[in-house]
Amino acid sequence: MSASITPNTKDEFMQASIDEARLGRSEGGIPIGSVLVRNGQIVARGHNKRVQEDNAIKHGEMDALMNAGRQRTYRDTVLYTTLMPCFMCAGTIVQFKIPKVVVGESRTFGESKQFLESHGVEVVILDLDECVEMMKEFIDAEPELWNEDIMEL
Amino acid sequence: MSASITPNTKDEFMQASIDEARLGRSEGGIPIGSVLVRNGQIVARGHNKRVQEDNAIKHGEMDALMNAGRQRTYRDTVLYTTLMPCFMCAGTIVQFKIPKVVVGESRTFGESKQFLESHGVEVVILDLDECVEMMKEFIDAEPELWNEDIMEL
Repeated sequence: MSASITPNTKDEFMQASIDEARLGRSEGGIPIGSVLVRNGQIVARGHNKRVQEDNAIKHGEMDALMNAGRQRTYRDTVLYTTLMPCFMCAGTIVQFKIPKVVVGESRTFGESKQFLESHGVEVVILDLDECVEMMKEFIDAEPELWNEDIMEL
Repeated sequence: MSASITPNTKDEFMQASIDEARLGRSEGGIPIGSVLVRNGQIVARGHNKRVQEDNAIKHGEMDALMNAGRQRTYRDTVLYTTLMPCFMCAGTIVQFKIPKVVVGESRTFGESKQFLESHGVEVVILDLDECVEMMKEFIDAEPELWNEDIMEL
């Protein structure tokens, strides 16, 4: 499933994550999306819902994992996300024993790569301009909301 | 608020966390409870709802934080929990910049203390027999459910 992942290209799962992020933005929310994949199929998808649901823990990754319900194991899954996970989401990936994360970009945010890798998680950063631009447009438009989401107020 | 916290004693906030845990068990769930405290007042309370809501991310701490809604800051809060946080909850504490965690016990579970402390979080472990016994009774009765919750299946 992963052999074809290379930087600066996106597959259908990153596209689905970007679609989720753009859906979130269209709802007035923070444009970060995520999908959980198993055997080349999307198990669940999600996006940041801090604004939409008044919910501080609903980052894109957490929303996707919540929408996945109770999975017996995550060892055979890959989590896609448009932005480098924060420590909440990174801790969740480690706890859930998700072996691999594919990230849209880590230029605008993200300090969890070393933590993830130190716990054996493979981190693939696609470094997509599309994801960077989506975040930059949002951060420029709503800096206070972004700082709230990353707890920098 | 914290000066009086000593091992083997519980205050009203740990009692509230234990009450949440017991409520969860009475619902058929996993007995772990948590409360978020600011200025000597409970901001929000929660308990593990994996079973009740078919929700893998609803650990006790996450439920309390979700019930707290959007807080402008958590730097003036203390999180109480009956059991040592897993990496999901520990990552959330770090990300949310919660400066202090009071833990009922860490004998039956918990490997996140070093991670929390390395990120500047004060960890107080009360080591309460009551919390240990609550977990032991549950793990003995429902080992598979417990292993699902800590992703050890």
